[in-house]
Amino acid sequence: MRAEEALRKIHTEKPLVHHLTNYVTVNLVANTTLSVGALPVMAHSHEEVEEMVGLASALVVNIGTLDPAFVEAVLLAGKRANEREIPVVLDPVGAGATSLRTRTAERLLSELEIAAVCGNAGEIATLAGLAAEVRGVESLAGDAETAARKAAGSLGVTVAATGETDYVSDGERTWAVRNGHPLMGHVVGTGCASTAAVGCFAAVGGGGGETVANALAYFGRAGEVAAGGAEGGGTFEPRFLDALAGLAANPHHLEEALKVEDTPGA
Amino acid sequence: MRAEEALRKIHTEKPLVHHLTNYVTVNLVANTTLSVGALPVMAHSHEEVEEMVGLASALVVNIGTLDPAFVEAVLLAGKRANEREIPVVLDPVGAGATSLRTRTAERLLSELEIAAVCGNAGEIATLAGLAAEVRGVESLAGDAETAARKAAGSLGVTVAATGETDYVSDGERTWAVRNGHPLMGHVVGTGCASTAAVGCFAAVGGGGGETVANALAYFGRAGEVAAGGAEGGGTFEPRFLDALAGLAANPHHLEEALKVEDTPGA
Amino acid sequence: MRAEEALRKIHTEKPLVHHLTNYVTVNLVANTTLSVGALPVMAHSHEEVEEMVGLASALVVNIGTLDPAFVEAVLLAGKRANEREIPVVLDPVGAGATSLRTRTAERLLSELEIAAVCGNAGEIATLAGLAAEVRGVESLAGDAETAARKAAGSLGVTVAATGETDYVSDGERTWAVRNGHPLMGHVVGTGCASTAAVGCFAAVGGGGGETVANALAYFGRAGEVAAGGAEGGGTFEPRFLDALAGLAANPHHLEEALKVEDTPGA
Repeated sequence: MRAEEALRKIHTEKPLVHHLTNYVTVNLVANTTLSVGALPVMAHSHEEVEEMVGLASALVVNIGTLDPAFVEAVLLAGKRANEREIPVVLDPVGAGATSLRTRTAERLLSELEIAAVCGNAGEIATLAGLAAEVRGVESLAGDAETAARKAAGSLGVTVAATGETDYVSDGERTWAVRNGHPLMGHVVGTGCASTAAVGCFAAVGGGGGETVANALAYFGRAGEVAAGGAEGGGTFEPRFLDALAGLAANPHHLEEALKVEDTPGA
Repeated sequence: MRAEEALRKIHTEKPLVHHLTNYVTVNLVANTTLSVGALPVMAHSHEEVEEMVGLASALVVNIGTLDPAFVEAVLLAGKRANEREIPVVLDPVGAGATSLRTRTAERLLSELEIAAVCGNAGEIATLAGLAAEVRGVESLAGDAETAARKAAGSLGVTVAATGETDYVSDGERTWAVRNGHPLMGHVVGTGCASTAAVGCFAAVGGGGGETVANALAYFGRAGEVAAGGAEGGGTFEPRFLDALAGLAANPHHLEEALKVEDTPGA
Repeated sequence: MRAEEALRKIHTEKPLVHHLTNYVTVNLVANTTLSVGALPVMAHSHEEVEEMVGLASALVVNIGTLDPAFVEAVLLAGKRANEREIPVVLDPVGAGATSLRTRTAERLLSELEIAAVCGNAGEIATLAGLAAEVRGVESLAGDAETAARKAAGSLGVTVAATGETDYVSDGERTWAVRNGHPLMGHVVGTGCASTAAVGCFAAVGGGGGETVANALAYFGRAGEVAAGGAEGGGTFEPRFLDALAGLAANPHHLEEALKVEDTPGA
């Protein structure tokens, strides 16, 4: 689904997007979801995750500050989401940095039907079985395009590897997304927020590669718009939320500015 | 208590306001409390909640990301607050969305003496036994005035149902509060923050209907002030905290701008 | 280590700084770390804290929202940090307010080798065995210089007591740091963020008194820079992150603006 159509559907349907996410960037994730036009909800208690995801149109899982109780909540919510056939989007934060994160990402991919995986190049390379360097939750190196293609092929899901250029692959086609701005790297949580935006698009358009690529292009375009007038990551962040909301409210000319390209070759 | 008097007392006494709250909007709740002029503290460990609330002048409970350990902390802190006769303010986030939230709000109202309940129209309608539509933590419909009156009557506490117009009822009198700005709905957590402001006012003035209504009117007035120059929810939020602090520091002409009206009839 | 040298080393090495911190100000702590030029990571699960701190160049512990599981995570991570001989920086948030906080701070100082302790005057006075008034997590009174000297002497670690003037003592020498701006007190978490900045400096320069003092001076200088144009704590905060990043990216003339003075006497 293209960005304009997705944003119009989000505006009309106001889908509930259930986030099981980390406590570092949770506020940015919630405000991103609201700015895109959807309704965010965070709920992790084992007593209610299944009921809450029963109201939702997508589930976004981010393992940035995982622990065993969190993983159990993800499995409960994820299985209910699968039964309801709503998309589950996974951000495997820190896969490759610690074995708990790598194993958990692999376990979720094995036990749940994931619609799309969105991570940085190092995290995606780790899941693809490639060499990677992940320091904490930052990717220091890695070929995002190869990682996305390889992971999508081996995992059988849509995979996005984000970076200066984002690459999205469904195992057959691969899209390069060239929107974005360097200031996005100067704010903690833009990666988490981009996965939230993918979750919003998936809520109305599913987790296919074109939809994921368009979500990331729209997200990157908001970064370009927000960068004008910002003097650093601090003043960029509020402007970025405004830009996400502004483009979502008036997506008519948005697509002209999106740089989504099919890339050749496997 | 009127807004000017409350803000002057808060400025002089710097009351400690203990929050048991959610992890999504906790930073905004803390900064709101500080901007109003009080001292925020967050402490949830069963080992210290009673001692911490022993230092506080009000307890604000927000069930936005509840789980069993959290509810236990609320009961411990709430009972100590009741013994000390300091006001307990409850934000029943998501009541009506899941049974855990509805049951927990009802349980807290049953086991604790709550001074004031502040929620959106759907949450308050749920507690009043009226039909409501709550999607996640958003109210999609509901007559706020009827909900506030009915809930105040049946629960025997001050009830605020917030929305475009806020309604506050003590079961006998009902106030309509018409301050506010649409941008407040473009930031996650303004509902939680308004309950925090009510908690600050309650710390110096108790949880009576007039005090709660004035807290919400001041809060809404800050939204009106902050909206000038904001381009969306992102840039609105920091300006809003400035406006809360600015009005609190100089409340002399504030009351002329507050739109608090007694409403007739039951 | 002086500020310019520390900031250049941070820029070159991009050290990973592992935070075990509170959920109120965690986002500001992470963004501060990134703005200074280091890489933040938050990870608390007992299953991974030791592995994660094994990748880090410093561990920053902040007990602002402690509970037993958190303290256990700190002990696991702290012991591993000690084995690896990377600095552990402690912010004893709320020591003096509740016995849990005071006892926990003392326990961590006893069971771990702490490189530096950074707190407000009341918290540090508490650890020095002096009379103090701590309301929640705010220090209401206390002689920061005496507290820092006394605590450094009795604990045998570098101690910073922050306030209008910050005092840093290693038990032999004591530095007064006079950078800063009153608006820093209008944002929740500037204390936590200053400890995060100390953690970044410690990651490349260790926890000696001169390094800690220079970290706080740089931090305060960023506050001075950010205050121009801010209308309150709300608009100050994003500008402050920009200022931290701006000074870190171009530290050439920074030291001329830093007010770090050796103080005479015991």
